[in-house]
Amino acid sequence: MISMTQIISARNGVLTDEMKEVAKSEGLPPEVVRRRVAEGYIVITKNTIRKETIKPLGIGEGLRVKVNANVGTSGEICDVDFEIQKAKTAIKAGTDTIMDLSTGGNIDEVRSTLLKAAPIAFGTVPIYQAAVDAQRRKGAIIHMSEDDIFNAIEKHVRDGVDFITVHCGVTKESVERLIRQNRLLGIVSRGGTFLAAWIKYQNKENPLYENFDYLLEIAKKNDVTLSLGDGLRPGCIFDATDRPQIQELIILGELVERARKAGVQSMVEGPGHIPLDQIETNVRLEKSICKNAPFYVLGPIVTDVAPGYDHIVGAIGGALAAIAGADFLCYVTPAEHVALPNVEDVKEGVIVTRIAAHAVDLVKRREASQWDYEISKARAELDWEKQFVLAINPEKALRIREERLPRKFVETCTMCGEFCAIKLLKEHVRAEH
Amino acid sequence: MISMTQIISARNGVLTDEMKEVAKSEGLPPEVVRRRVAEGYIVITKNTIRKETIKPLGIGEGLRVKVNANVGTSGEICDVDFEIQKAKTAIKAGTDTIMDLSTGGNIDEVRSTLLKAAPIAFGTVPIYQAAVDAQRRKGAIIHMSEDDIFNAIEKHVRDGVDFITVHCGVTKESVERLIRQNRLLGIVSRGGTFLAAWIKYQNKENPLYENFDYLLEIAKKNDVTLSLGDGLRPGCIFDATDRPQIQELIILGELVERARKAGVQSMVEGPGHIPLDQIETNVRLEKSICKNAPFYVLGPIVTDVAPGYDHIVGAIGGALAAIAGADFLCYVTPAEHVALPNVEDVKEGVIVTRIAAHAVDLVKRREASQWDYEISKARAELDWEKQFVLAINPEKALRIREERLPRKFVETCTMCGEFCAIKLLKEHVRAEH
Repeated sequence: MISMTQIISARNGVLTDEMKEVAKSEGLPPEVVRRRVAEGYIVITKNTIRKETIKPLGIGEGLRVKVNANVGTSGEICDVDFEIQKAKTAIKAGTDTIMDLSTGGNIDEVRSTLLKAAPIAFGTVPIYQAAVDAQRRKGAIIHMSEDDIFNAIEKHVRDGVDFITVHCGVTKESVERLIRQNRLLGIVSRGGTFLAAWIKYQNKENPLYENFDYLLEIAKKNDVTLSLGDGLRPGCIFDATDRPQIQELIILGELVERARKAGVQSMVEGPGHIPLDQIETNVRLEKSICKNAPFYVLGPIVTDVAPGYDHIVGAIGGALAAIAGADFLCYVTPAEHVALPNVEDVKEGVIVTRIAAHAVDLVKRREASQWDYEISKARAELDWEKQFVLAINPEKALRIREERLPRKFVETCTMCGEFCAIKLLKEHVRAEH
Repeated sequence: MISMTQIISARNGVLTDEMKEVAKSEGLPPEVVRRRVAEGYIVITKNTIRKETIKPLGIGEGLRVKVNANVGTSGEICDVDFEIQKAKTAIKAGTDTIMDLSTGGNIDEVRSTLLKAAPIAFGTVPIYQAAVDAQRRKGAIIHMSEDDIFNAIEKHVRDGVDFITVHCGVTKESVERLIRQNRLLGIVSRGGTFLAAWIKYQNKENPLYENFDYLLEIAKKNDVTLSLGDGLRPGCIFDATDRPQIQELIILGELVERARKAGVQSMVEGPGHIPLDQIETNVRLEKSICKNAPFYVLGPIVTDVAPGYDHIVGAIGGALAAIAGADFLCYVTPAEHVALPNVEDVKEGVIVTRIAAHAVDLVKRREASQWDYEISKARAELDWEKQFVLAINPEKALRIREERLPRKFVETCTMCGEFCAIKLLKEHVRAEH
């Protein structure tokens, strides 16, 4: 049987149902979507065998900026119900995708439960499971075998996962460059660390790189999108945009081309901790080196000094990255760098990242600004109810207002009361024309 | 007696104590500060007669990005102790300046109490008091006299206020252009609305424009910095960067030159609601039209859809504005557009705005990134205590960690536990070299 991935169909001139659905939801001509899928500028994340009915999601050039929310257990906090609640909260708050990053408990069970609970585009990082299994069964991650890694990937693909992070660019070459760089914060990617430690101990090449063709076969079978992970992303401002980071990006760019040739969809993951003035450079580099592959960024985090506020730090960086051309923003929560996020952290993380994404959409896609127009119209009419219905988080806005309702001039708010500019303007200036 | 303002002294080649202090706190050669004060590219906000001992604050080219926090009563919520608590919270959270925007209760008393409670650069908007008095004594703001306006200004100057917002650019000309523009949200500046309504009703020119020379005399006497207000700033994305906004900016640019000639320090206020892709344009326009006068922006707010989150929306816009050259960021709180802020809102507003300012400082001023270096070093060493001491808000970061402390691998956090990348890297890769 020949596997018919979206990219192969697109290249054969076939408009799939998935392309039509993406085109419809994005307000684009289907033919534009097909052409960009054919080039690899857009990916459509949908595992062909996923049992839950999910809408295909397009990520890439000319599409709405997408938002991902990470959930998942750890060895320290492991509660499937808690993770389901987080996934559901993220979906309600408007995330486009969910990634399960579980490293605690029965990882298979967590994943299959989350897949059912989250009928949207779903991603995982299979190397986590391979590493945790190796730790449990063999006493150390470095004793993980190549089969352990590929078995985990095959299991996730068979379960219906739509996209998988694979750190194929953590190679002997990039790890050597990392060591020569003498970074302040080394590696902060878990997958990157697992593989770097493995490469050093085993003195072998990264199996995900060495046997990339095998990985492509597995992905192709179910049209799983490869999210080429940036295992060497900088973990602090001081390490940003350095040689190992860019070395890894160069390797990923080569792999994007190999994936396209093999008919496999791929996107590229990006940093990380990056100062404001290097964000555009990072996006342009990725778009150039990886030939316009969709760019999926984590943050970026534009200062290291604000633990507890990293969702906001990430929203600043995310807005800048997306305006420069990043396509997909991984949320950061207030708990980043400090603890496993709770339900409230997940909610805030999604909303704040959506704000960054929307601030970019409204300038890149004229129809997106209609939302801003409508809420501003309600504001001009002092129509509080409508403002709150339209707000990105109605409950929060309403709670602030209700805690401090005006008592004298009830059509205004307690900031200005009778001196409300909108009220005065209506009475004095607007009335005349 | 000749009034010796900082700008006159600077032009005469005199290095004042204030310039030396600013130079020291900014790590610049005093001569650089003097030259920029002489050109009007830097203002030093300090009323010559302010009784409270305050440090002179420099705002402008090449200096650290500054943050302002607004406090003040309204007709709906009027409690001096509450406002003092807010001012003290803002100072503790690290604001550089406080502005008192009171429109409720005994405004003189609120101001003099706040001046004592806030021994940092202090600003007001005297037209608010003139308007409130006119409303109380004459039944309507439009019955405010020219004397009412100038008397309020003189009172604030005599009280020791360091900088005052004066909406001199809301003129017959710009108000006509406003009406022809047919905006979605008209005017959202209170001062702007008061004056536009007054101009329309009285059919006279704005006294702050008509008698600008008199305003300059008053300001010069105590070396009060004029903050030329943008009364016609856009109140929603739909109205951004339109003709009345830019018309007002042109007028303000002319007034900056007149102020400089008269030996009065001035800065220019800016929007407001501006989409991401117009922020740099707005900053460059101001710097060009107003000949590098320090630019003081409110937000900017980059989307209208997020009431309850406007501190974050403003931090995204503020970071972009400051990287493009804005010098001074007015905070926005979570209560913006909804209610008078409370103490917690003030704290969050200041911290989030400081994050935006610092994210810019660290790329523009190498020494500012030392903070990021130190906290990242603590992170690399898994030194939690030091990380929290260095955090912009230690309590919040600590609270998140303590709610969810790791129990098995206590040196890590509950996100990764035993699979902490930093811990693993230490054990496997770093150990070897």
